[in-house]
Amino acid sequence: MTGFVSLVGAGPGDPELLTLRAVRRLEEADLVLYDALVSPAALAFAPHAQRFCVGKRARRPSVSQDTIHGLMVRAARRGKRVVRLKGGDPFVLGRGGEEALALAAAGVPFEVVPGVTSAVAAPALAGIPVTHRGLATGFAVVSGHAEASWSPALASLEPGSLTLVVLMGLASRGAIAARLLARGWSAATPAAILVSASNSDAAVWTGTLEALGDARLPETPRDLPGTLVVGEVVSLAATLGAVVPAEAADPRHAMSARR
Amino acid sequence: MTGFVSLVGAGPGDPELLTLRAVRRLEEADLVLYDALVSPAALAFAPHAQRFCVGKRARRPSVSQDTIHGLMVRAARRGKRVVRLKGGDPFVLGRGGEEALALAAAGVPFEVVPGVTSAVAAPALAGIPVTHRGLATGFAVVSGHAEASWSPALASLEPGSLTLVVLMGLASRGAIAARLLARGWSAATPAAILVSASNSDAAVWTGTLEALGDARLPETPRDLPGTLVVGEVVSLAATLGAVVPAEAADPRHAMSARR
Repeated sequence: MTGFVSLVGAGPGDPELLTLRAVRRLEEADLVLYDALVSPAALAFAPHAQRFCVGKRARRPSVSQDTIHGLMVRAARRGKRVVRLKGGDPFVLGRGGEEALALAAAGVPFEVVPGVTSAVAAPALAGIPVTHRGLATGFAVVSGHAEASWSPALASLEPGSLTLVVLMGLASRGAIAARLLARGWSAATPAAILVSASNSDAAVWTGTLEALGDARLPETPRDLPGTLVVGEVVSLAATLGAVVPAEAADPRHAMSARR
Repeated sequence: MTGFVSLVGAGPGDPELLTLRAVRRLEEADLVLYDALVSPAALAFAPHAQRFCVGKRARRPSVSQDTIHGLMVRAARRGKRVVRLKGGDPFVLGRGGEEALALAAAGVPFEVVPGVTSAVAAPALAGIPVTHRGLATGFAVVSGHAEASWSPALASLEPGSLTLVVLMGLASRGAIAARLLARGWSAATPAAILVSASNSDAAVWTGTLEALGDARLPETPRDLPGTLVVGEVVSLAATLGAVVPAEAADPRHAMSARR
């Protein structure tokens, strides 16, 4: 009997942004290997599965990528249904490709269940469309985790040509803003910081690229996920982010940008 | 009594990629205004709602954007729960920002329900991670619908610096490939065409940038959605796209790249 591994995107945090297939795979799972940023409410869909946190958080020891591969492969070979539950989408900056390659190399059958990526959802929930007629015809997504990952990408982008979204960008916002200004982006370009988007502790800062580096967010633990957005589309948050619905089915989840 | 409008992302097509919130909003809806590419199975979650197709398809007359705004605003003012159901994510290249602005201007309460964007999911389902260590540290998404929308973006991107994803790119693949080659992208850069991703009629072509313009897909109606991917990550499809799981809960939906 061969098991099966599902690489599943958990979305930005709010369990209501899980897909139907993600929920189904969790319900069927024998083993769930989840990232640190996955919410407990998502795990509640797999009450009978073994559940292990294998996630990385800033300044904490984490399970190595090889160990994660080994756990998935061994469990599948014992016939288990394994869910590898990853924040956002499994193939956006989350080493999901490496995990898929490890499974393929081991001959373990697997699938990818795409999720709602924070690169689009975090801005949207703050009233920022990543594309908008007359403001941006496209967008670019990079990781702010290590300079080696964002530096070449930022160098290659013509200033202002696309909306720039930086995932995991909170800690490096100063360095990234400085690089963009040096690259020729206007200091007045609207910019935003979106922390813990879709969760109850979500926070939004908007301002200009010039102010981004020194932006202060209230009570932000260092390992909360933070998304940066730079581009004219951020100006729409003033109109779209302020709208709080009068009669949402669940007002906690409706659009409400706090700043 | 004031109604409420939800701008809801329907994902790439497969109704199992709807989010839990999208399904909930559909179940509660009095009126659903949907795009042409939204699947009938998604609409089945709103069996009691009035349902109108307001979508645009190639070569067919379509409902104007102003008319869509008017329908949403009038229904909400009559106290209706309105779902504006859009393919993919409502704020990725879908004029969702314009619809949100129209609602804000009319004082109609609304929310955005992010969806799974085809920009990430279509490649993922063909075994292509848009980012991958050593191959791509980020990705850019543009629309292939009109040259005015992709031309400046492509001009601004350093060749090979990011994975390039072109939504609605099927018809302009020749012009886009020519522009990228002229811009200095290597003719050998791996490229893919993903048609109707996540649906039962999905088709995948992979090759090189040089061959992209003349790529022929079997039996492709002109108004199927098509996503182009250009970048080294496409080479992973040879390994990841060929894996067909032995024991998927629903094999129809598991990773299966046909080419």
